Amino acid sequence: MKRTIVIALAIFTFALTARAQESGKTIAERLGYPRDAKLLIVHADDLGMAHSVNVATMKAFESGLVNSGSIMVPCPWLSEIATYARANPQADLGLHLTLTSEWTNFRWGPVSSKDRVSSLLDKDGYFYLTETDAAAHADPKQVEIEIMAQIEKARSLGIQPTHLDSHMGTLYQSKELLEVFLRVARSQKLPVRVARSWFSRADILPESLKQDDVYIDRVLDINPGVTPQDWAKFYSEALKKLEPGVTEVVIHLAYDDAEMQGATFNHPNWGAAWRQRDLEFFTSDAFRKLIQENQIKLITWRELGKLLK
Amino acid sequence: MKRTIVIALAIFTFALTARAQESGKTIAERLGYPRDAKLLIVHADDLGMAHSVNVATMKAFESGLVNSGSIMVPCPWLSEIATYARANPQADLGLHLTLTSEWTNFRWGPVSSKDRVSSLLDKDGYFYLTETDAAAHADPKQVEIEIMAQIEKARSLGIQPTHLDSHMGTLYQSKELLEVFLRVARSQKLPVRVARSWFSRADILPESLKQDDVYIDRVLDINPGVTPQDWAKFYSEALKKLEPGVTEVVIHLAYDDAEMQGATFNHPNWGAAWRQRDLEFFTSDAFRKLIQENQIKLITWRELGKLLK
Repeated sequence: MKRTIVIALAIFTFALTARAQESGKTIAERLGYPRDAKLLIVHADDLGMAHSVNVATMKAFESGLVNSGSIMVPCPWLSEIATYARANPQADLGLHLTLTSEWTNFRWGPVSSKDRVSSLLDKDGYFYLTETDAAAHADPKQVEIEIMAQIEKARSLGIQPTHLDSHMGTLYQSKELLEVFLRVARSQKLPVRVARSWFSRADILPESLKQDDVYIDRVLDINPGVTPQDWAKFYSEALKKLEPGVTEVVIHLAYDDAEMQGATFNHPNWGAAWRQRDLEFFTSDAFRKLIQENQIKLITWRELGKLLK
Repeated sequence: MKRTIVIALAIFTFALTARAQESGKTIAERLGYPRDAKLLIVHADDLGMAHSVNVATMKAFESGLVNSGSIMVPCPWLSEIATYARANPQADLGLHLTLTSEWTNFRWGPVSSKDRVSSLLDKDGYFYLTETDAAAHADPKQVEIEIMAQIEKARSLGIQPTHLDSHMGTLYQSKELLEVFLRVARSQKLPVRVARSWFSRADILPESLKQDDVYIDRVLDINPGVTPQDWAKFYSEALKKLEPGVTEVVIHLAYDDAEMQGATFNHPNWGAAWRQRDLEFFTSDAFRKLIQENQIKLITWRELGKLLK
């Protein structure tokens, strides 16, 4: 996730439930917590993209402080994270549905047969580099074919996804794409990343939602305006001010190593050093202490998903 | 390249020319060298596979001692090596036609639409792990579709291949596959890796060749029986004993870094440390001295290709 996702994610996220919101209960209450509980999902994106991402995220999971993540099925290192998923069936792993291939030297394309999803492909046969190009060209029927293929492939490899979200927010770029995303998620009985705080995007969001859909309250993520020196400060201040309800902090983990430097060489935002900074902060004692001192309770998408069963 | 390629490559390689061999001239003579000249192509396989492979090979090219290589079009790091090819149009770069995906945690699939080449795919939609499985399942018509798609994609990215060879020797596994390979190479007027020394494989080789095809004399490559301690000794002895004619030494370059260790974790043969050993030997002063002291002349596939024009 990167680039205009800052804008897209400042607008969106979502979870489905069998209980209607009109009952007046908050998500926190539906999950069995007090109305004023501060609930946090610490979520690593982009699993399967690169070896560096996979090993950094698996290490972060060991810390217990990062407790959720989502997998990019079209990416070359999928098999490595699928092996992890099979060995750790309780891990909170969802699918990071992927319709973009954003690193210029390191590319991927669809799971489905290319001639069935030609609207998703650039002239070189890969997904488009940006979510705006992807959304501008995408035939929604082909989007549905491809994201269903990603879900089916994940399941065939033994991944039992706990949730769905959208790499670089491509599926939040138009009402048509969002409705494909929600329809697929409902068919799979899986919660998806949509947040109540995104309802300012009134053009596409509320009218696409159904009465028995339920939303998390907000997404927290860092953006390119934060300097490396202020990295820990940004997250620390956000956690100290965390409001009650369900927040997902969306992070990107990897090592600042040769592979990630090669992939992100021309794109420091969401680049190799960025990801190592996220790794260091979210596995640190400082983060553990912030959770304790601010009475933050870590929860997972698996808990949210139970509301749909 | 790996595993049974040792056997396959002990048997094969090939170059086409407009001049017939019955004229009695050796390849060396056709190229304008004396009959007793010792001509060597120092060829790195697997470009495009991984960032580590690309950067190690580009560094080796700078030394001038490694002077040829071939590119795997279906692999995720193709764009990085395509950028290099466009910036270095004189580089001797061919295509390492790819029908296998041999690293269990790091996979790739076809360039063509999956439903057109279903016989080339394993149950997860990738190429098969081994050349024997690939050859056992491959429909030759689909092989032709896929290797033509790889050539067309390379050209569309600005790569002007000087030669063709076959990753893991899949295209040398049967007469049918070899004939597809030779037919495609002839249509492209490109020389391919086939060696006179492989003619012991009488079942498929001589009868597939045409009168105006020309072969290099032999391929030299290291095999898993050589210990790391004997690496330099193996190559040094082979170079000291190099016979006259055209030899291609087929090597595999990469750094012994996290990415390559991750890809090859369960396969030390052709693994990360193996590739760094090759990199160190073939960019060493010792190798430079061996070339000089043994009157070895480095040539490229581009020179061989001129015989076809």
